[in-house]
Amino acid sequence: MTKEEISEAFKLLQDRICKRLEALDTKAQFHQDLWSRKEGGGGRTRIIQAGKVFEKGGVNYSAVHGPVSDMMRKQLKLDGNEFYATGVSIVLHPHNPHVPIMHMNVRYFELDTGEHWFGGGIDMTPHYVIPNQAKDFHLALKEICDKYDPTFYPEYKTWADKYFFIPHREETRGVGGIFYDHIKTKSQAEKEKMINFALDLGDAFAQLYEHQYRLGVIKEVSEQNILWRNIRRGRYAEFNLVYDRGTHFGLKTGGRIESILMSLPKIVGWEYNYVPEENSNEAQTLKWLKEIPEWIDKI
Amino acid sequence: MTKEEISEAFKLLQDRICKRLEALDTKAQFHQDLWSRKEGGGGRTRIIQAGKVFEKGGVNYSAVHGPVSDMMRKQLKLDGNEFYATGVSIVLHPHNPHVPIMHMNVRYFELDTGEHWFGGGIDMTPHYVIPNQAKDFHLALKEICDKYDPTFYPEYKTWADKYFFIPHREETRGVGGIFYDHIKTKSQAEKEKMINFALDLGDAFAQLYEHQYRLGVIKEVSEQNILWRNIRRGRYAEFNLVYDRGTHFGLKTGGRIESILMSLPKIVGWEYNYVPEENSNEAQTLKWLKEIPEWIDKI
Repeated sequence: MTKEEISEAFKLLQDRICKRLEALDTKAQFHQDLWSRKEGGGGRTRIIQAGKVFEKGGVNYSAVHGPVSDMMRKQLKLDGNEFYATGVSIVLHPHNPHVPIMHMNVRYFELDTGEHWFGGGIDMTPHYVIPNQAKDFHLALKEICDKYDPTFYPEYKTWADKYFFIPHREETRGVGGIFYDHIKTKSQAEKEKMINFALDLGDAFAQLYEHQYRLGVIKEVSEQNILWRNIRRGRYAEFNLVYDRGTHFGLKTGGRIESILMSLPKIVGWEYNYVPEENSNEAQTLKWLKEIPEWIDKI
Repeated sequence: MTKEEISEAFKLLQDRICKRLEALDTKAQFHQDLWSRKEGGGGRTRIIQAGKVFEKGGVNYSAVHGPVSDMMRKQLKLDGNEFYATGVSIVLHPHNPHVPIMHMNVRYFELDTGEHWFGGGIDMTPHYVIPNQAKDFHLALKEICDKYDPTFYPEYKTWADKYFFIPHREETRGVGGIFYDHIKTKSQAEKEKMINFALDLGDAFAQLYEHQYRLGVIKEVSEQNILWRNIRRGRYAEFNLVYDRGTHFGLKTGGRIESILMSLPKIVGWEYNYVPEENSNEAQTLKWLKEIPEWIDKI
């Protein structure tokens, strides 16, 4: 597959995901902004807001290319003169504190030297961690991984636990998921395997979300739940602004700011030194985020 | 003056500032948390919340010391084996969108090699920029600076404009103020000058704030004002989490997280691609933040 074919496959994936998420929301629809990049390429940013399910969410597609800048050479250690990068990125923030934030990214990178690699991941950030729901999520991811390679799930699950960690809080962003990067392929067959894996993850995304949504939305929502949701959203913003490599890469390479920062929630709360009551659901959630379990085996 | 004497002076400064800010608020009082650092030293974090004026604010004093870590040696290029750092840090977030966020920091750093320096600054972040009020603020800072050195204001004003800049938004955080760092002193007289300058800034802080408060609080507050306040607070959080050197230093050296991140507002909003109406007060504010005027001469 050529880079253009991969990019086209990602574009169609964005279409399918948006359609499914609109069907789930039933009220709001995606608003599309087309943008282009001075040095080459551009994207389609699609934002959903004020829905029945979603308070704010985005499904972004982009395919950008151009000269490898000094910054990219230095910080990303890239060879070559020209790069090409394409992918789909999703972040969904629901209204309901009992429904999780969910994120996905699948991407492909190619240099004019011929070097190329895949990256991606899905992770889930419940405001309240429910072990069985985390297990469902991980079982579904494992099933997709196992179709391609039995080593994928254990490797990529561990990678996600490391990546989605907030050192200054000594906790993970959520219940993790899978994360992979710089996966180089040596044959056409391997390349097709990786693109199909990415598309399978993408096509599972809306269904994974819907499952979590159905389990959460039936619960009653208290003011305390909203306060806690806003605090957890604050941690999400801290992770993305302080640590997330994709966010920093975008901010420093002159990406479209509003597309990059669509990942930030509409309303966020920072309470000074908030300590949950002992044995509360909030305290239990913090415990899981510090423990980082093997959700499938140990729960 | 010894480092202990400087630290003691900062501690008393914290006391005076808190007293004045409580007198201004009239409703809320500071809550104090004492903390200590494993490697040496500690601090007094004082937080004011749910006041008449202040939604959330902090006045922190700390005096920490210990071995120069590898990280400090590498990233801060510090010589010596032991360091000592003491200072006062303030961030105030008012309820009223017509009243500015204000920040101050004064600090002193010493190495066991005998090397030592001062740093500090005050800057103001109005949710709505009012040129005359920015001018008042800068005139007051210039007056304090000029008492010590006629070069201070022009140099430190420019330094603040550079420091409090958000590159990915191509705008300043607010109307600036003054910023200085690594000011080394060669005699006891020079050292005393710098500590007195810091204390004068600190003692002016509450008065500077009160002046801005009186001018803002008389204005009516609309829902639009609150929305815009939350968006501007988002920019404040972006600056602190992505760029602020003090915040990153604290997060990476194992400082007390809740004392460092007290700078983040209680409620923040991120609206996708918010574009103010033409000629609105919001649009005018953005124009000033991109223009970065010499407030004193040119307004």
